[in-house]
Amino acid sequence: MTSAVSQLGPLAMICGGGSLPLAVADKVASSGRRVVLFPLRGAAEGTAVEHYPHHWLHVGQIGKFMRLARAEGCRDVVLIGAMIRPSIWQIRPDFKALTLFPRVMAAFRGGDNHLLSGMGRLLEQDGFRLLGAHEVSPEILAPENAIGRVQPSEQDRADIALGLDYLKAAGPFDIGQAVVVAGRHIVAVEAIEGTDEMLARIADMRASGRMRARSGTGVLVKAPKPNQDRRFDLPSIGPVTAERAASAGLAGIAFIAGATIMAEPERLIEIADRAGIFVVGVPAGSDP
Amino acid sequence: MTSAVSQLGPLAMICGGGSLPLAVADKVASSGRRVVLFPLRGAAEGTAVEHYPHHWLHVGQIGKFMRLARAEGCRDVVLIGAMIRPSIWQIRPDFKALTLFPRVMAAFRGGDNHLLSGMGRLLEQDGFRLLGAHEVSPEILAPENAIGRVQPSEQDRADIALGLDYLKAAGPFDIGQAVVVAGRHIVAVEAIEGTDEMLARIADMRASGRMRARSGTGVLVKAPKPNQDRRFDLPSIGPVTAERAASAGLAGIAFIAGATIMAEPERLIEIADRAGIFVVGVPAGSDP
Repeated sequence: MTSAVSQLGPLAMICGGGSLPLAVADKVASSGRRVVLFPLRGAAEGTAVEHYPHHWLHVGQIGKFMRLARAEGCRDVVLIGAMIRPSIWQIRPDFKALTLFPRVMAAFRGGDNHLLSGMGRLLEQDGFRLLGAHEVSPEILAPENAIGRVQPSEQDRADIALGLDYLKAAGPFDIGQAVVVAGRHIVAVEAIEGTDEMLARIADMRASGRMRARSGTGVLVKAPKPNQDRRFDLPSIGPVTAERAASAGLAGIAFIAGATIMAEPERLIEIADRAGIFVVGVPAGSDP
Repeated sequence: MTSAVSQLGPLAMICGGGSLPLAVADKVASSGRRVVLFPLRGAAEGTAVEHYPHHWLHVGQIGKFMRLARAEGCRDVVLIGAMIRPSIWQIRPDFKALTLFPRVMAAFRGGDNHLLSGMGRLLEQDGFRLLGAHEVSPEILAPENAIGRVQPSEQDRADIALGLDYLKAAGPFDIGQAVVVAGRHIVAVEAIEGTDEMLARIADMRASGRMRARSGTGVLVKAPKPNQDRRFDLPSIGPVTAERAASAGLAGIAFIAGATIMAEPERLIEIADRAGIFVVGVPAGSDP
């Protein structure tokens, strides 16, 4: 196994924020494949990357990345972790990036989906192969059915169906991948603020009385955008998602099985079970 | 004029929160029509209603409302102002409401749109006539084109078009009526938190660096839901909207001319002009 894996050559991981990049690095490394991290300044966390060979990058240092990744013998590249859409002024293009400038700018316009697909094409034109995190570590994909002790009720399932319908309708607009539905009413929609921030809003609205659905009702529903390049930016859930969902007084979390990345599943399930919330993967057929 | 108006009989206004109910009451009263306010406890502001004959109501006191409105000689009823969707436990149904219980419950399920339309039907079955605020005071509807000094740029117009497209797609889900678009990217979507809260989020995301679009870019776009009963819950803008939009660093505010209620237009324009933001009514053809 280890020898077959090592024939793949080392894996370059360009890392944004959150616990997911390291969780994937650990999975890949434990399969015997060498991992080289390229944490992005301002996004990736500082200390965790030190367990692996790593090279810090500024957003825009495409030439530096290509040179270092080649020197490390990496052909396969994974882009993973939370990224804040950078301001054009915060990008530090190196010479290579400048030569690619028109194509980078074309990628930069439009939504995140365009930006990431554009980055992917640029890398592939230079001989790299951009892979999704789930392609190098399939076990990070969330399975079908309830994970953990708690099952969604019939009412929760109706909320989940409404959330998926909405995400399907909103998909073409390249916005967030998550929504909160309570009592068949959409109570929060994620755009660029991110899932954690949206869940904090639910908690606030409950505390202030703006949202009056009973605590213990409501579902966080996540789904990939339709037509999204699934090599990047699949929806992800992790222990923090379960903590925030519990703090927001939700009944549970629903997502598309096989199309959602699950970081630290053991801790996620432990937190969900203790809080009494469900964590359920719905079949990919329900997928927008 | 006054005699023609007074033949209409006094107007009952069931009032939620915000400055809009009193602005409309003032317009109607200045045309010579008698106004009787029915402020809702927990929603309407206390002192402002005292300028008019008024009777406080709890949500659910349908019988009390009908009795008092009849005693005041009111046949026409307007329901206006911000309403938080009440918890079922906070409703205090009176006897009349209990006799209507199955129909009230049917109205209560589903989104706000159903709730309000259902209330309208209940009142009409008892001989009242439910009118939109713009029907008793047409001058509160926002006009077409830029109001105030500042005009939207071409880029702002592209953002407005994207916002309207999104609101059209999201319309069937009976969620908010507003979205913020910056650089052709949807950055915030309103659900139950309300427009002011959504704009506060934009300001927060700019301060924290999560949203990096340059200050002075981005548009608040509001539009009525498709198929909405326009007697209630037309989108509204007012001085607070302009203040919040300016604090959020937006370029301006766009809405559907003739299908948006404008509270205190003079103050709104004064604030917008001073802040250098545009306030523009787009033609009703752009309306989802």
